[in-house]
Amino acid sequence: MDSNQTLPQIDLPLDLIHLGIGQPSSQLLPIKEMEKAAIHCLSKGNNFFLAYGEERGNSNFRETLAGFLSAQYPNKVDPGQLLITNGNSQALDFICTLFTSPGDTVLVEEPSYFLALKIFADHKLNLISIPVDDNGIVTDVLKKKLETLTPTFLYTIPTYHNPASVTLSFKRRQELVEICAKKNLLMVADEVYHLLNYSDDPPPPMGTWSNQCPLISLGSFSKIMAPGLRLGWMHTSVDLVRKMAGSGLLVSGGGFNPFVSEIVNSAICLGFLNTHIKRLKTIYSQRIKIFCTQLRMYLPDQAVFKVPKGGYFIWVKFPDSIDTNDFRKAAQEQNVDFYPGSFFSYKKGLKNYMRLSFAFYDEEFLAEGARRLGKVIMENENH
Amino acid sequence: MDSNQTLPQIDLPLDLIHLGIGQPSSQLLPIKEMEKAAIHCLSKGNNFFLAYGEERGNSNFRETLAGFLSAQYPNKVDPGQLLITNGNSQALDFICTLFTSPGDTVLVEEPSYFLALKIFADHKLNLISIPVDDNGIVTDVLKKKLETLTPTFLYTIPTYHNPASVTLSFKRRQELVEICAKKNLLMVADEVYHLLNYSDDPPPPMGTWSNQCPLISLGSFSKIMAPGLRLGWMHTSVDLVRKMAGSGLLVSGGGFNPFVSEIVNSAICLGFLNTHIKRLKTIYSQRIKIFCTQLRMYLPDQAVFKVPKGGYFIWVKFPDSIDTNDFRKAAQEQNVDFYPGSFFSYKKGLKNYMRLSFAFYDEEFLAEGARRLGKVIMENENH
Repeated sequence: MDSNQTLPQIDLPLDLIHLGIGQPSSQLLPIKEMEKAAIHCLSKGNNFFLAYGEERGNSNFRETLAGFLSAQYPNKVDPGQLLITNGNSQALDFICTLFTSPGDTVLVEEPSYFLALKIFADHKLNLISIPVDDNGIVTDVLKKKLETLTPTFLYTIPTYHNPASVTLSFKRRQELVEICAKKNLLMVADEVYHLLNYSDDPPPPMGTWSNQCPLISLGSFSKIMAPGLRLGWMHTSVDLVRKMAGSGLLVSGGGFNPFVSEIVNSAICLGFLNTHIKRLKTIYSQRIKIFCTQLRMYLPDQAVFKVPKGGYFIWVKFPDSIDTNDFRKAAQEQNVDFYPGSFFSYKKGLKNYMRLSFAFYDEEFLAEGARRLGKVIMENENH
Repeated sequence: MDSNQTLPQIDLPLDLIHLGIGQPSSQLLPIKEMEKAAIHCLSKGNNFFLAYGEERGNSNFRETLAGFLSAQYPNKVDPGQLLITNGNSQALDFICTLFTSPGDTVLVEEPSYFLALKIFADHKLNLISIPVDDNGIVTDVLKKKLETLTPTFLYTIPTYHNPASVTLSFKRRQELVEICAKKNLLMVADEVYHLLNYSDDPPPPMGTWSNQCPLISLGSFSKIMAPGLRLGWMHTSVDLVRKMAGSGLLVSGGGFNPFVSEIVNSAICLGFLNTHIKRLKTIYSQRIKIFCTQLRMYLPDQAVFKVPKGGYFIWVKFPDSIDTNDFRKAAQEQNVDFYPGSFFSYKKGLKNYMRLSFAFYDEEFLAEGARRLGKVIMENENH
């Protein structure tokens, strides 16, 4: 059993099991592989990646990344369609700077990734939500909203949704592309969990359609390698790559992360990324099995959730009469925590939900967390 | 003599000597040191820097950096006053996102760093300029302008100015701080060249006054180590650090560059940064000596410039009747290039200036560049 971890961004009381945290455990951060990759990259005698890089990312890395993605995806990825980023948070911020002005309307899903909502708030954007069901964003509602609204973009999490854990069906993907093409609506698809499937492959990533409607698909090494690298990519049209590469930020600073790109280039070429993703899938699958069994055992029957097919999250639904905020304090006192559903709604709805994650703790902690959580909820019900 | 270098962001014709380029030469990028630093950092058995980092930058790195800066500066730097960035371009972009709205007025110097102006344009800011003389920004003009204007911030390059090469005097620094305090005007001081002095130390960096007026001083490893690292820092008040660390971008993505920070932490602890800065100073001093001698020899007498005391640039002034854009094409045909003064003016003024840099080429190239440039200008005069 892992000891309770301390990672820089999170400062937890010693005995707390925080089931809300969506970060990989410390033992899943591949330090040995990064060391070998760094030596491989830095001992080659080249040093071009210490200079300002190409605005869109250095071409050798975009080629390696395109090759890697082409092997994972059903369709080939062209290096000319990639722009290297500092990860999806930075990519979202960059898109807001380039494409929006304060007061613009942006469509988000209900629920949506709560920290993306905070980035949009910093850009003073006006949010309107579209519901998500078991097949992802409800395209019929979107269509209806677009009869009266002209939003600047739509932010969607198509695969292994954060927090809802659902995946947009193939049919809905096609519909969504059609709608965006027809309405000239920019789709920003956060596909950060796409490569973390624990059973069948998901439908093709939205990037596949990037020539058929205005679309930027965001990928990241945060979930498949290490968040501290701050490295990700946009998969979009050649025209949008060109437009973004001409921004003041990129022309001034050069590509977003040339040094780390080159180390990760080595990690991919040495096969470490493939091996690491396989390892993550095995470990997360095992955790899900144990965690879901324990949750089923300890949570009351009206707490409903699906076993995740990928990604990081379990989205638990309680009866409408329940507000998960009501027992959060009691949970913390029992040394267990979660993120209440209202975090994932800019309107503070979804009060009868909670997000749990299995990324941060191993099986024994998850089992103990499930037991503590169940106890708190049962006690709360009896009050 | 170096062969003409190819670096990722710049794509030059084979025989061209482009004296405008403000990037370090390839042979000044310390690849061996970075390799040793990476091994030192990655073999220690820690991996916390692969996780999401503290929003303001990991504390161990901020402590190392504060120690390094305290040794360079006349005053002690507190780690609590530092926020780690991806370099000054990203820092400027971040400041614009957090503190401005489109249409806001921002004061810039005339001349100013042309790519900063492009970042401000992406944020749709309204620019107003304050002149710079031999002692830096003219505080009397600033004072006058502030009688009628309430700008969101002032962007200034106090030390070894880009492109004007001048340094704000100690007296003017105090005046500037007083003005900003009185008017509650945020000063954004780009101090990227502060540590690259080739004779006496410059006056204290503006960060020294960060508790006396609203002020963010920007520092970077781009000029003292390697641009490809995309690593820099803000030196500001504890309150502003806290405010910025609470932004959506940082809370979502964690600190801007935890992995590279830790490698640079090793580079500082191993003494590489100090040694490298010394080496840069020696090399740039030699280049300045040769280059300025050659420029004096080949340029017409009415071309006036001062020998730089630090930084990257020589700012050449021609008589008012001359527009340096007029002979740029002829220069390019003679395989020499420069940046015309109008690049550094959002109003496209300063046409009778040109910016030259000695960062990118070694002495022999610089001498040859000076010879070619002189020839073009002489021919242009005779037309």
